[in-house]
Amino acid sequence: MKFCSQCGAPLVHTIPEGDNRHRHSCPACGTIHYENPKMVVGCLAEWDNKILLCRRAIEPQHGLWTLPAGFMENGESAVEGALRETLEEAGARVKDPTLYSLISLPDINQVYLMFRAQLSDLDFAPGEESLEVALFAETEIPWDKLAFRTIRATLERYFNDRRRGDYPLYIEDIRHRNH
Amino acid sequence: MKFCSQCGAPLVHTIPEGDNRHRHSCPACGTIHYENPKMVVGCLAEWDNKILLCRRAIEPQHGLWTLPAGFMENGESAVEGALRETLEEAGARVKDPTLYSLISLPDINQVYLMFRAQLSDLDFAPGEESLEVALFAETEIPWDKLAFRTIRATLERYFNDRRRGDYPLYIEDIRHRNH
Repeated sequence: MKFCSQCGAPLVHTIPEGDNRHRHSCPACGTIHYENPKMVVGCLAEWDNKILLCRRAIEPQHGLWTLPAGFMENGESAVEGALRETLEEAGARVKDPTLYSLISLPDINQVYLMFRAQLSDLDFAPGEESLEVALFAETEIPWDKLAFRTIRATLERYFNDRRRGDYPLYIEDIRHRNH
Repeated sequence: MKFCSQCGAPLVHTIPEGDNRHRHSCPACGTIHYENPKMVVGCLAEWDNKILLCRRAIEPQHGLWTLPAGFMENGESAVEGALRETLEEAGARVKDPTLYSLISLPDINQVYLMFRAQLSDLDFAPGEESLEVALFAETEIPWDKLAFRTIRATLERYFNDRRRGDYPLYIEDIRHRNH
């Protein structure tokens, strides 16, 4: 961040009066440009004893498998964002979403909100950002071809929970490694 | 958003190739400036049958009461942010935080994550953004002087839950009114 998005003047990086953190601030118009974490929202969609994965058609991690998820957009709720991403990436409709994992990634300023949900039907198909979409039983999960640590953590937890028949909310912070 | 924060050139508002939403994009350097919801994190801190409220020393809603909460910062987890805000606004330390409410406010592009937690001791005091900090029993809550709808919703739910002795996660979207 080098220039003020309001007036175009060069920014300075300083601690504003009354604040305790460095911010990009504009000496010309006074605007302080705060930067905050982004939310990634998505679904763990179940069908019988299987769950839905997408193989990524985009970087990062092109060709690897993930749960349908993406950046939450302005103007939508967290649940709406999770359903939208599931539709966009997997062409899939789900119902009964419940929050299943809240994973903070402070190193990259992201927070994952993953919802467990029931796939409505088998009418799914890869969207523009996916190469393939498929249902996987636990023994079929491509553990060595998963795209992100957050996805691995969520899936490992999920299959453990399913054996116990209990799905408590999973809150975790992941630091200093590939996500 | 009028100028590119990377190169200072005037921005256009258009749908980038492969996207389906309008974004502020730079015709000079090609940067797309995505805008996403911000997270507000905070605590509902309990002490015996009372909870901790702060009276706001800043706008908006100067002089009204709220739970300690504020924008999550880069470089911290959601829980860390909630504890930091509780310390900054109420001078209070808490333990055993559990996620209690996830409230989306699509009209203002915010998501509240409020944690229920136990106040560690009675050594609290207003921070720079608070006029007063105090513990309130249910009958003492200043219902007509609460700052935000999210806070009212969380408190109403909380006292109902406490009567039942069960505190399920509360997921709600609030639209088109003062929050």
